[in-house]
Amino acid sequence: MPRRTDTRQRVVRTAAELFRAQGYHATGLNQVLAEGGAPKGSLYFHFPGGKEQLAVEAVALAGEELRDALAGVLAAEPDPVKALARAVDLLGRELLASDFRSGCPVATVALDTAADSEPIRTACADAYASWQRVIAAHVGDDDLATVVLAAIEGALLLARTRRSLEPLHAVAARLGALLGRPRP
Amino acid sequence: MPRRTDTRQRVVRTAAELFRAQGYHATGLNQVLAEGGAPKGSLYFHFPGGKEQLAVEAVALAGEELRDALAGVLAAEPDPVKALARAVDLLGRELLASDFRSGCPVATVALDTAADSEPIRTACADAYASWQRVIAAHVGDDDLATVVLAAIEGALLLARTRRSLEPLHAVAARLGALLGRPRP
Repeated sequence: MPRRTDTRQRVVRTAAELFRAQGYHATGLNQVLAEGGAPKGSLYFHFPGGKEQLAVEAVALAGEELRDALAGVLAAEPDPVKALARAVDLLGRELLASDFRSGCPVATVALDTAADSEPIRTACADAYASWQRVIAAHVGDDDLATVVLAAIEGALLLARTRRSLEPLHAVAARLGALLGRPRP
Repeated sequence: MPRRTDTRQRVVRTAAELFRAQGYHATGLNQVLAEGGAPKGSLYFHFPGGKEQLAVEAVALAGEELRDALAGVLAAEPDPVKALARAVDLLGRELLASDFRSGCPVATVALDTAADSEPIRTACADAYASWQRVIAAHVGDDDLATVVLAAIEGALLLARTRRSLEPLHAVAARLGALLGRPRP
């Protein structure tokens, strides 16, 4: 019999994947429990705060995972332009491998809950802030990190909508200009 | 008694506003009809294709309106950097005036339906393509227009999530670098 913490973690991970692809409102709790291998009706046992608590934890998990992935990619390449282009490439590969379902792990939930859940909005803002800090540490400027993050987020949104990696490639090709480097 | 076309247009406009703020799945048809002043149960009379048809028309309307607004702002200012900064300012004012509910008129629906409705995804892609064409006509390059649009879209997403216009200001301040102009 699986341990309670295993089930709980599996449910949070499943929720993070479903929220990433289809947002908060389209994701039913029964779908999360079924795909997470948890008994029907067990949500409030694991998450007394219900779907909202589950979403806060799922966004936090997704935020930490992408922060760690970003930090790893950037740490492996000292040149900021090349390093950020590799991060964009990583996100593009995830998008393609998921048949354009898995864009930004936070954006869909951020937008479809911003108007109605302050705890989820805050979790999303925290995730973005953590990614921005990783980028800022690499490019040496907070505002510039915001612009880089915005360009990548927007490119993921356009790429998902167009079902094409072109917007990500276009952003990767302009990172040098954004960072004040001459074009190669 | 209002004409049938008036009611229909009012319902499409109401739907566009609700989809913009809360996405497709969180928006109930009864809410759209009530806020649009249409009789309960009249949706399929006006929209035989149901909620999906309503969303396609709402996205198309929102897309045309922002395209025309963008074209107007850009036509009034020959300098591309200043013109795009004004467009960003316009979007920021709408976001602020709506208490951070009204970000990009298409993004929330684009993300929360991308995985499950090809007609809505196509309508969203068409809206983005129409804005990109307006920007490309002003900056003279398709890829650059994609990057500018991505940066603005990402900034709207971050601004909405943070409840702050800072990301939009950061992008506006870097448009010159993106467009290959020296910083003032």
